[in-house]
Formats: sequence, C-alpha cells, structure tokens
Amino acid sequence: MLDFCKCSCVTLLTTADEPESHILCDLNEPLVDHTEGQLFLNDTFKIIMEEVLCKGTDIKHKVCEWKEPKELALLLDLELRATGEPQHRLLQRVQDVAKYSIKTSHPRFMNQQFGGVDYHALAGRFLTEALNTNLYTYEVAPVFVLMEAEVLRGLRQLVGWTEGDGLFCPGGSASNMYAMNIARYQHFPEVKSQGLCGLPRLNIFTSSDVRNAAVCTWAAFLGIGTDNVIIVEVDEGGRMIPDDLDEKITLAKSQGAVPFFVSCTSGTTVRGAFDPLDLIADVCEKHKLWMHVDAAWGGSVLFSKQHSHLLKGVYRANSVSWNPHKMLVAGLQCSALLLQDTTDLLRKCHSANATYLFQQDKFYDLNLDVGDKSVQCSRKVDCLKLWLMWKAVGSIGFAERVDKAFNQARYLVEQMKKREGFHLLQEPEFVNVCFWFIPPSMRGKEGMADYQDRLAKVAPVIKERMMKQGTMMVGYQPLGNKVNFFRMVVFSPLLTQKDMDFFLDEIERLGKDL
Amino acid sequence: MLDFCKCSCVTLLTTADEPESHILCDLNEPLVDHTEGQLFLNDTFKIIMEEVLCKGTDIKHKVCEWKEPKELALLLDLELRATGEPQHRLLQRVQDVAKYSIKTSHPRFMNQQFGGVDYHALAGRFLTEALNTNLYTYEVAPVFVLMEAEVLRGLRQLVGWTEGDGLFCPGGSASNMYAMNIARYQHFPEVKSQGLCGLPRLNIFTSSDVRNAAVCTWAAFLGIGTDNVIIVEVDEGGRMIPDDLDEKITLAKSQGAVPFFVSCTSGTTVRGAFDPLDLIADVCEKHKLWMHVDAAWGGSVLFSKQHSHLLKGVYRANSVSWNPHKMLVAGLQCSALLLQDTTDLLRKCHSANATYLFQQDKFYDLNLDVGDKSVQCSRKVDCLKLWLMWKAVGSIGFAERVDKAFNQARYLVEQMKKREGFHLLQEPEFVNVCFWFIPPSMRGKEGMADYQDRLAKVAPVIKERMMKQGTMMVGYQPLGNKVNFFRMVVFSPLLTQKDMDFFLDEIERLGKDL
Repeated sequence: MLDFCKCSCVTLLTTADEPESHILCDLNEPLVDHTEGQLFLNDTFKIIMEEVLCKGTDIKHKVCEWKEPKELALLLDLELRATGEPQHRLLQRVQDVAKYSIKTSHPRFMNQQFGGVDYHALAGRFLTEALNTNLYTYEVAPVFVLMEAEVLRGLRQLVGWTEGDGLFCPGGSASNMYAMNIARYQHFPEVKSQGLCGLPRLNIFTSSDVRNAAVCTWAAFLGIGTDNVIIVEVDEGGRMIPDDLDEKITLAKSQGAVPFFVSCTSGTTVRGAFDPLDLIADVCEKHKLWMHVDAAWGGSVLFSKQHSHLLKGVYRANSVSWNPHKMLVAGLQCSALLLQDTTDLLRKCHSANATYLFQQDKFYDLNLDVGDKSVQCSRKVDCLKLWLMWKAVGSIGFAERVDKAFNQARYLVEQMKKREGFHLLQEPEFVNVCFWFIPPSMRGKEGMADYQDRLAKVAPVIKERMMKQGTMMVGYQPLGNKVNFFRMVVFSPLLTQKDMDFFLDEIERLGKDL
Repeated sequence: MLDFCKCSCVTLLTTADEPESHILCDLNEPLVDHTEGQLFLNDTFKIIMEEVLCKGTDIKHKVCEWKEPKELALLLDLELRATGEPQHRLLQRVQDVAKYSIKTSHPRFMNQQFGGVDYHALAGRFLTEALNTNLYTYEVAPVFVLMEAEVLRGLRQLVGWTEGDGLFCPGGSASNMYAMNIARYQHFPEVKSQGLCGLPRLNIFTSSDVRNAAVCTWAAFLGIGTDNVIIVEVDEGGRMIPDDLDEKITLAKSQGAVPFFVSCTSGTTVRGAFDPLDLIADVCEKHKLWMHVDAAWGGSVLFSKQHSHLLKGVYRANSVSWNPHKMLVAGLQCSALLLQDTTDLLRKCHSANATYLFQQDKFYDLNLDVGDKSVQCSRKVDCLKLWLMWKAVGSIGFAERVDKAFNQARYLVEQMKKREGFHLLQEPEFVNVCFWFIPPSMRGKEGMADYQDRLAKVAPVIKERMMKQGTMMVGYQPLGNKVNFFRMVVFSPLLTQKDMDFFLDEIERLGKDL
C-alpha cells in the first residue's frame, strides 16, 4: 500500500458514530475515500514519471503521436456519462491523455516559447496544486502573500528598481492589459467611475511587428478600440523606430486624440527583436506617456551580465511584463507585471472594496491582503514554482541558462550557414532563429516568377510531415511581405548540439523532395 | 533509485560526443539532470502526500499554523540569492511551505467557496502541470482542444442548451468580463475597432447583494465605468427584484443611457441567494438586453434533480459562468463561460488574427484552433481535472455530492436552532449558513443601545482566536446594515456531522467569555 502515508486520517474520518436521525444517516461518512484516492494519485504519479518525464523527454520517443481529430476523439472516449468508472479504467485514461498529448518537455519540441522541463519548478507546481489556495488574503495564503512579494522584489531588482509594485497575472496578456488599465487610470482617474464615454479618444502605440495583433485585442477589451492602436514602424531587424514614434504621437495629438501608452517589446514573438528602450524612454518623457515594456519573452535576459544590454534603459519604464514560464521554464502560467509606481496605483485602480473579502477589522496588517490589486476574485498561486527554482539554481544558474541559450542559437546559425538549403531571415539578435528551407529543386532559381509562392508552400508541408511522423515540432509563419519561414526558439535547458544537428538533418530529410 | 523510471533517457541525453569547438564545448550537455530532478520530484511527492493530503486532511492536525508575517518571513527565509542550494535544503523548503500554508483541503476549512479535495481532480491537475501546454491550437494541445469542447458541451447540456459555445477562463471574473465584452460587441460591433468614445453611455444591471463590488471592477476594466453599473434592489432573501430591474432599465433609457447587460446571480457569495431567472428573462426579453447568469457558486446545483429548480429559467440566458473549482472541488482554477450563441460571437469579438499563431494554410481544420476565442495568448488547461473527476464519479456522483451538501447545511441549521447562542441571518436557500454567535453575556439584551456595536466585534475576535489556535477557519463579514456575521459554506465532500457539531462547539468555546 502507501508507505508514505502512515497517519491515521483515513480510519479516523470514516469511523461512524451512531447516526442521530435516519434521514441524515449518510452524513456521517465523507464522500471521498482517502485510501483509494491516494492510491490513484500515486499510480497517476508513476504514469506521469514514466510517460511524460522519462519517455516524454527521451529522444528515442516521439514528440507527438499525431491523430486526426475524429480518430483521437474516438480513442479518448471523451463522453461524460451518468455513472462513474472503476479505477483501472481511469488509470488507462490518464495513460491515454499522456500518450496523445504533445510532449512539450521533449528536447525536440521547439514549437513555442515554452517547453523543456525544470524539476524544481514542477515540484513547486505540484505543491501549489495540492495546497489549492487563492492568492488574495494573508489569512488564506500567508506563505504565498510573502513569497510573491519577495519574487516580485527580485524581478524588479533586475529591472533596476529598488521600490515598486506588481502582481502575478494569468499570462502576459493579462499583465499587459493591467498595465494599460493602470496607465489609463493614472492619466484619467475619473475613468474608473465614469468610463470612457465622456473622455477624448485615447491612443496606444506599439510596433508593426507581430504582437500588435495582441495589443489590438487588449485595446478592444478595455473599450479603447483597435483603431486607436497606432502602429509604429520598425527597422530592418524588427525594432521600433523612436523617431517614427515621436512623429506619430505628434500627429495623433494634432488630430485630437490623447496618446497615453507606449507598448515596447523586449523580444518580439517571431524575430526576437528588442526595441531601443532608452531612445523610446526619451520620447515618452518628452510627451509624458506611460512607457510599458512587454518583456514576456525577453525579460529573462536581465539575468545575464553578457546580454542584459539588450534591455538597456528598461529601468526608465513605468511597467514591465515578464513571463518566466517562457525562457526560464517555470511552467505555464507564470507571468509577472512589475510597476515602478510607489503610490499604490495598482490597488486604487483595481480595488472593489468588497467587504466580504477584505474586512477592515482584521487582526493583521490589511496591506497583506493583496487580492484587491487584481480584478480577479480567484487568483492562482504562480510564484512558488519560480521561487523554488530560483532557490535551486540561484541567479547565477539562471544567467548560465540564458547565456547557454544564446550560444546554442549561435551554434545553430553557424551550422545553417554551412549547409546549402538554409537561408536566414536575418542574423538573430536573440534565441529566435528564423529561416527558410530551400528545397533542392528550388535552389538557384530565386529569379523565377513563382519562386515566392512556391517557397510559401514549403514550410507547411514540412510541418505536416514532422507532425505526422512525430520526430520534432518547429513553428512557421509569414511576416509582412516575407512568406512562410520557420522559427526555432532555442532555450530549453535540455537542448544539446546533437539536437541542433538533428533539427537541420530532419528538415533536410523532410523537405528534400519538395 | 527510481523504480518507476526504467527508460534510458538520462544516460542517452548526457552521453557527450567530442565537442566541435572549444568555445561551445558545454553545449553537448543539457543543463538539467533528469535523475537528480526526478528524485527531487519523487521526494516532493512524498511530502505532499504526508503533509498536505494525510495530515492536512486529518482532524487531529491543525488547519492553520498561524505565524505573524515577520516571524513567518524569517522562518521561510524567502530571500532569493545568487547561488543555488543543495537538494536536502530545498526539500526542507518544500516541507516548510506545506507546513505554514493553510490546509484548504481540511474538513474544518470553511473559510471560502473552495476547499476539500478530490483525488481524481488532483491527479488531473498534476498531469496538466506535467504536460505543460497552452490551450490555443490543436497542434499543441490536441487532447485538450477536444476535451474542453466535450466538457463545455456537458455543462451546456445541464443549462439546457444543445448547441452553443464557451471557454474555460482564469476564474469567474474573467468569465464574467468576457460575457460583458461579448454582449457589448453584439450590441455595438463597431466597439471593437472604435472603442467606447463615440458611443452613448452603456448601462449594466446587477443586484445590491455583495458581488456588485466585483461587477463594478469589471465594468471599470472594460472602460464602462462603475457609475454605469445600476444596482437593482433585492428582496429579504437577497434575490434581485425583477420589477425594480424593469423600472431601472426604463429610467436609464429615459436618461439617455443604453442598457445592454443584466448580470444575475445564482448563488450569491455571502447569502447564497438565487435570483429569479425566469422573471428576469422576461424583463431582458422585453428590453432586448443580454442576460448573463453568474453561477460561479451555484451552477453546480444543476447536477441535482432535487435542487436544480433554483436555476429555473437559466436556459433563457445568453451566457452563464460556472466555477467547478468551487462546489465541485475541481481545484483552482476551473471556471467555464458558457454561451447560447451559435454565430461565433466569441471568436469574432476576441480574435486578433495573429498569423504567427493561427496560420491559414494548416493541414487540419482551423476551427480546432480555439486560441483566438480568448484575449489570452497563454491559456492554461483547466478542463482535464473536471473531465477526469466526471469520468470517475459520473453525473450521478456529482448530484449526490450536491444533495449531500444541502443535507449537511440543513443538519447544521437544525443543530444551531437547538443551541442558545446561534442566531440565523435567514433560513438558507443554499449551502451558505449565515449566523451571529451571541456570547453568553449578550443574550437577552437585544434592546441595549450598544448591542449592535458589541455584536459587530464578536466575530472578529472569535476569528482571530480560531486562526491562532488553528482549529478551524470560518469567514465573517458585514452586509448592508447587518453587522459582522459568520458564513459557513457547507460543501466539502470530506465533511461529516461530527465536523458540523465541532464547528458549533468550537465557536461556543472560543466566544464564551465575550
């Protein structure tokens, strides 16, 4: 049985006294059987270890067990029924879910800006789930209220702030929307009560690289509208051009709008570009605009002495969002919003003063009840996984991971240059390596009329093949007038040179007949 | 060693070939040691089992190990440093986090609308964490795209809809804000591009029971403004009065505002009241308003044939939010937004058309890429825990839990009536049991001038004592002109009559000298 569970909770809870009433006789028994439940959890843990963490990170096993949707639905037997199932059947379901899910921890999963695995972070996540609490009051989450404050302090210190505020949010989008909302509130405190309907048209500025699609969604959600997101031009590397920002702000003002928010990016999604923060800060200061840095992807570079210059000037921002679930492999979700503000803007902007949550006659310091800094009533604990991992490897360990990721990306680029079929979109500034694979039949035919059309079709075919064979996962996309190209994101701590070589070999193999 | 890990991933990944270059020599080694990592995870799992799931659910152990914030910060040694720590030190940290955290699974934790434990749900949560994926494309989350659709279908069926749409959101607040945003978009599709600044003043209606504080926060976030949340009166049980809603809508129109959204509640936070949905639907139809039901707390009643009448008419709503992490014990977070709409409003309202995520030339049905239904770019998988639990107990099992919770609440009320010091706020409609404890010294002195002031101070003192002694956790709050009263929420599947009796005994013990 369960050798780790020597306490007597099970027997104690199920020892029934004589019932007081016949109608209520079942009320003396809990509806959950601890022994059976813990056995199931233990068996699930074994499956997780074997299928997800051993096989799922083993290059001898597939990244992906591709099935067509209809076939997969049948295999999983998803239907929810009136009656329950026996434990062995449920364990088979756990096994099936693991089997047919993408192995995002696998060294050959490079499809997204998350992936890999860190066991300390994962331990922190299991503990978070087991403790199942809501990060809103000191009363219900004493450890995590203090821990979150410490982790935010540590992240702010890397930005260059000794004071400030912040919060973990459910993903980068939420962090960025929070920043927008706080900036709006700072400019027009009356917006909280009166809304936007009496206000002038507000303008937001961001660059023309891809994440502007997301910025538009957030602006729409906040009632600002996508038309009020002004797109600033980028240079050839995908970096916002400060002079263009300056001109567009001036233009917007002349058209009667009120510019209030600039969203710069440190590490764009596709190209991994870093906007020139120092120069943008000059423009923001000149026009008195809120400067926000979306460092969801690139923020982790701040750990590295060698590469942190990419975010030079970040300390001049008003707010920074940073997702340690990306480059630091903390696990989804882990997204911090950091604020330079020391005037309690976050709380003032978001508080609801709900007396049922935040009683004013409590016996401890009410500033510890952080829940009214958030518009969420339930907020998951996202700090423990990062805290535990940070304790395990230290800031030096994080720096080592970042530096190694840059070196791996450099190695990958060098290898590409040695091979005939790989054509880089640009020299990478970060760990995003963007390239076209030119199949043998197309090499040397760049002048042909349908070359770009044909090239656009290469990546989707290779992608379909790699998915169906399950050997690896790499993403592709078009960008502006550039047709479909692959983007490798090189950051998983599991990666080795051999994996890099494999990626290139495999793309050649999958695309050689195209 | 690890008997569950028989595969050779560790050795395979750390077998280094000769490095190609001296600069890059470390690139042949992964930065994560699987053997060491899996051992740590295994040890953490043992601590979770023992501290959180055995002791943490055992009535012989405390719910809460209260420490003052400064003392706790010292005990936890939260500081983040440059260098990492050895495994045994990290395991001690895991142990400390477990020790000083509130045991929300404990039968005597009744402080919030979450708590208890379901082992199948917890197994689903561990698996979710290990698989670490983002629910936005079929490509990266094939199992969960299909599973989420099926779970949403099952929940919609209980609402009474054979078709519709939906999404799991990071908490009920997000679900409710989504509903508001979609309703706004349906009324004024141009709001997505133009924002609110050219539109008339929009009005939202909700009842005067406590959750209106949250509704105000969401309205502020969406740019609508708290002044535009119109408060509808409630009856003596805390239920919205449809005639007052009708009058207030008419009044708002006459004042030039555009009413567009009514947020009803099925299971209010404090009193557990259910708004009369059928009558409210009549008013919404008459005025052509979007009817939203915030059933975060009470939605789970739909599983029970005996009690589902409390939500009679819910099928007439346009949208419903429902948090299975509350009454169904799915674990934080698990919040569904359900829509009756079949015209793809959700996607139209929230889509960003980000080409880097949703390529139009994929080799499978793009409708499976659900990510652009959400304003989040990263969205956690929240369906697996509920799906697995549903498979384990079936709809019948959920119905049994709901019915038992009602019976437990009934038992608690009956016992209170037998005791002298307990005074009910009202007969409960749901599993929220609200009451004042009248200490012996105050009994029979209701006529005294300072009676209410003295009564208001009773609950905070008892609360402080129970926290510091760690015997149980129950919440209190004032409501309107009613001074501080306790609210027990009786739903944990671990609860027995003995726990109910204990609660009453313990409140008497803690308050007998007041």
